[in-house]
Amino acid sequence: MKVILYIGVTANGLIAGEDDNASFVEVDSWKGFEKIYKKAGNIIMGRRTFGLSIVDGTFPYQDALNVVMSHKKIKNEWGENVLITDQSPRWVITKLEELGFSEAFIAGGGIVNSAFMKEGLIDEIYLDVEPIAFGKGVPLFAPDDFEVNLELIGSKNLNSNTIQLHYAVKK
Amino acid sequence: MKVILYIGVTANGLIAGEDDNASFVEVDSWKGFEKIYKKAGNIIMGRRTFGLSIVDGTFPYQDALNVVMSHKKIKNEWGENVLITDQSPRWVITKLEELGFSEAFIAGGGIVNSAFMKEGLIDEIYLDVEPIAFGKGVPLFAPDDFEVNLELIGSKNLNSNTIQLHYAVKK
Repeated sequence: MKVILYIGVTANGLIAGEDDNASFVEVDSWKGFEKIYKKAGNIIMGRRTFGLSIVDGTFPYQDALNVVMSHKKIKNEWGENVLITDQSPRWVITKLEELGFSEAFIAGGGIVNSAFMKEGLIDEIYLDVEPIAFGKGVPLFAPDDFEVNLELIGSKNLNSNTIQLHYAVKK
Repeated sequence: MKVILYIGVTANGLIAGEDDNASFVEVDSWKGFEKIYKKAGNIIMGRRTFGLSIVDGTFPYQDALNVVMSHKKIKNEWGENVLITDQSPRWVITKLEELGFSEAFIAGGGIVNSAFMKEGLIDEIYLDVEPIAFGKGVPLFAPDDFEVNLELIGSKNLNSNTIQLHYAVKK
């Protein structure tokens, strides 16, 4: 199982503003996001990211099993392509393996990202670095105890100002 | 006056660990750092960065006016190539202009970086993105109220795993 984290960040490593707003993420980044989660066939997210996706009308993401990780109870009103769980990152990955997936796609936010990192479960990271910086917001990884070395697989310009960094996590 | 911020960051936008350790910054990044601060002829830093530079033996940086911004009193034991001040970012830039500099080089840490950003004083940012991520540490910008759009001037690989992103701050 290959576990992929894909996320748009500011140049200073934030994934949203204080108000959870991530509208700085450019259309070219969303295209890459969509291509890669659809290839995985699933998309894993935390409760805040779920809430934002409801608000902006993107939930449930199409052509994928939507996995929502939440310790608060959320009623599944969407049916079979939505899985809501209060289980651990490792449980989620095992579940996806049982369901026949060979890739898992993590879409944030910071708490979920860190939870998977801390368990050593992430294999690859795509960072779409957007041409913006601001002083307050949600960091890519919520403060947690982990440290990993990365290998830069590649970088590519998504447009004249957005660059994608693609890393493998060294194990 | 062109004001440059140059700093090594983790892939998730941290400039040091919880213990202020920034030993993850690779030698190729330090080479670029040295080249650019020497061209500017000055290097501006906050009190913590100053303290770390004392500890690792790099202070005072050679061939440059070392400007230490500190609200706590520090005795100048180094002479003319060190300027210690409790004045504002704008005062520092004006002072450097008076001294005949055409570039100012900011070397961190997060509080100083944000102070200059908040005043709209930074023109260019170099980020040497190191192949590491960890969950707790010092962010590139200390939490503060600013938001700027950036223009990606260019990117270049400093070695197989470290990439330098070079931005202009849109004004």
